[in-house]
Amino acid sequence: MEQSFLAYLRGRCRSLRQVAVGIGDDAAVIDPPSSKPPERQLVACTDQIIDGVDFELSQLQEQGKPLADIGFKAMAINLSDIAAMGAEPSSALVTLTLPHQDATRIAGEVYEGIVEAAEKYEIAIAGGDISTYDGPLAISVTLLGEVATNRSWLRSGAQEGDAILVTGPVGGSILGRHLRPTPRLDLVKPLRERVNVTAAIDISDGLSLDLDRLCAASSLGAELDTDKIPIPPDAEQLAQQTGHTPSEHAWRDGEDFELIVTMSQSDAEAITRDQTRGLVQIGTVTGRTGLWQRQKGKVVRLSPQGYLH
Amino acid sequence: MEQSFLAYLRGRCRSLRQVAVGIGDDAAVIDPPSSKPPERQLVACTDQIIDGVDFELSQLQEQGKPLADIGFKAMAINLSDIAAMGAEPSSALVTLTLPHQDATRIAGEVYEGIVEAAEKYEIAIAGGDISTYDGPLAISVTLLGEVATNRSWLRSGAQEGDAILVTGPVGGSILGRHLRPTPRLDLVKPLRERVNVTAAIDISDGLSLDLDRLCAASSLGAELDTDKIPIPPDAEQLAQQTGHTPSEHAWRDGEDFELIVTMSQSDAEAITRDQTRGLVQIGTVTGRTGLWQRQKGKVVRLSPQGYLH
Repeated sequence: MEQSFLAYLRGRCRSLRQVAVGIGDDAAVIDPPSSKPPERQLVACTDQIIDGVDFELSQLQEQGKPLADIGFKAMAINLSDIAAMGAEPSSALVTLTLPHQDATRIAGEVYEGIVEAAEKYEIAIAGGDISTYDGPLAISVTLLGEVATNRSWLRSGAQEGDAILVTGPVGGSILGRHLRPTPRLDLVKPLRERVNVTAAIDISDGLSLDLDRLCAASSLGAELDTDKIPIPPDAEQLAQQTGHTPSEHAWRDGEDFELIVTMSQSDAEAITRDQTRGLVQIGTVTGRTGLWQRQKGKVVRLSPQGYLH
Repeated sequence: MEQSFLAYLRGRCRSLRQVAVGIGDDAAVIDPPSSKPPERQLVACTDQIIDGVDFELSQLQEQGKPLADIGFKAMAINLSDIAAMGAEPSSALVTLTLPHQDATRIAGEVYEGIVEAAEKYEIAIAGGDISTYDGPLAISVTLLGEVATNRSWLRSGAQEGDAILVTGPVGGSILGRHLRPTPRLDLVKPLRERVNVTAAIDISDGLSLDLDRLCAASSLGAELDTDKIPIPPDAEQLAQQTGHTPSEHAWRDGEDFELIVTMSQSDAEAITRDQTRGLVQIGTVTGRTGLWQRQKGKVVRLSPQGYLH
């Protein structure tokens, strides 16, 4: 529903001058108050996680897992959106919606994780809202950040012939990494210094699904060398439990919060030569839309799979 | 719970340079990206309304009331916070959390009101999030606005001897006005042009409770001439149903979204002389903390009453 509703919204909401990038990317880009022309733009995004939809509170409590993890995650998924815009985070507004039972304890525990993430990434908690209600725990975070004017990494900027890279191994995050995701904010500055990123998206719903979105936004396609997709031990381990292959998990598992980035082939060669950053080229942007793979000389269409809201 | 938890948070969250005004006012004030010194600051607030807490969806549907009202209200309560900071709104991020049943219809109806408010107040919907879950309808809005640097109207700025004014009649909004509140954004510019507002707060939880908060933030008190509090026909009508007096309703009813503002006595005289704006002086800021009333030469303490979260 989210995708089609966002399409409706894009049509329904008129564009105003101050919004440079609106609904449909990882975050919005907004011109700041009256600097003319602005040196830097505001980046804003909001994402929430809900008990029973995005996590299972009772399960976490049975397993003795700290609720701080959920607070940390609510911050991290938004920080990942900021990273996907090539931006730097600055402050957050946090809304907690708490079940009546144990509201104060839950709020305190969840907030420990929120504050931990805020300290780790040097973000100020500027405000928020708290309610108790007859419903499941929900944590909604709005993150504000900044980016050099007209330099944000949009989904729509990929060029035909660009290299497609992933910033790290994907798949199997459900085995534990999904609770404490690492937004790839560490890559924003080094990538800006060394290459020209043409498009980016973070992997929240699955490599193939999010790559498909980037391609669709750019009105282009991708030819992939699927053997190059880096697979973590988690995906191997999960494959033994599920009967799927590790590659299948890499292709469709969500919540890795690595980035997919595109850049010129020469930039890609420069950045992958220095392997310390962990970026891996997995394909090339093509004029033909859709996701494709070359197999024994033939090009076959791949089907995007992942978590659909 | 909200007040004590916010106190905990204020202590727990470290202050960062970029946040000029953090948790505890109607909105946060944030320095924009790297203008030095900034001409204007960002103002950001977030507030949500929830079925069963802030409105009753089933009741509205039985009464045939359009759900657009709820969307409009979710925007208006945040716009009121922006007005209470003496700021101008610019863009909004909207998070809808929808019950599984009728999710698409509800989202569409609610959004009509959101878009209506956005158009009326020239605000861009810059982004948002949508989820469906096993819980009641919740609408969370984050509003971004702007204000001249260090010119925001804080709760803490009242001075001893200042006049206390209310921007319009209060009480009985529950009879209908609460569904379509009018944030007093229209007053921001004229007040800025003619007087120096020293402190402000919007009346969301009740005149007395919100005035008490303004006084507490300023470490001062108020001596009121309660007969001067303007009372609308709604409060008179409601009094006939409840057995309370119209004054009692004016004192404690919430959701009027008028503003309480303080300013020098001479400014107050200047602005109330021109009655077209509807501002009424209801008292004076005193050094003695608490709310007070002079009755037959004696000063008696008044008890703040209103909607406590």
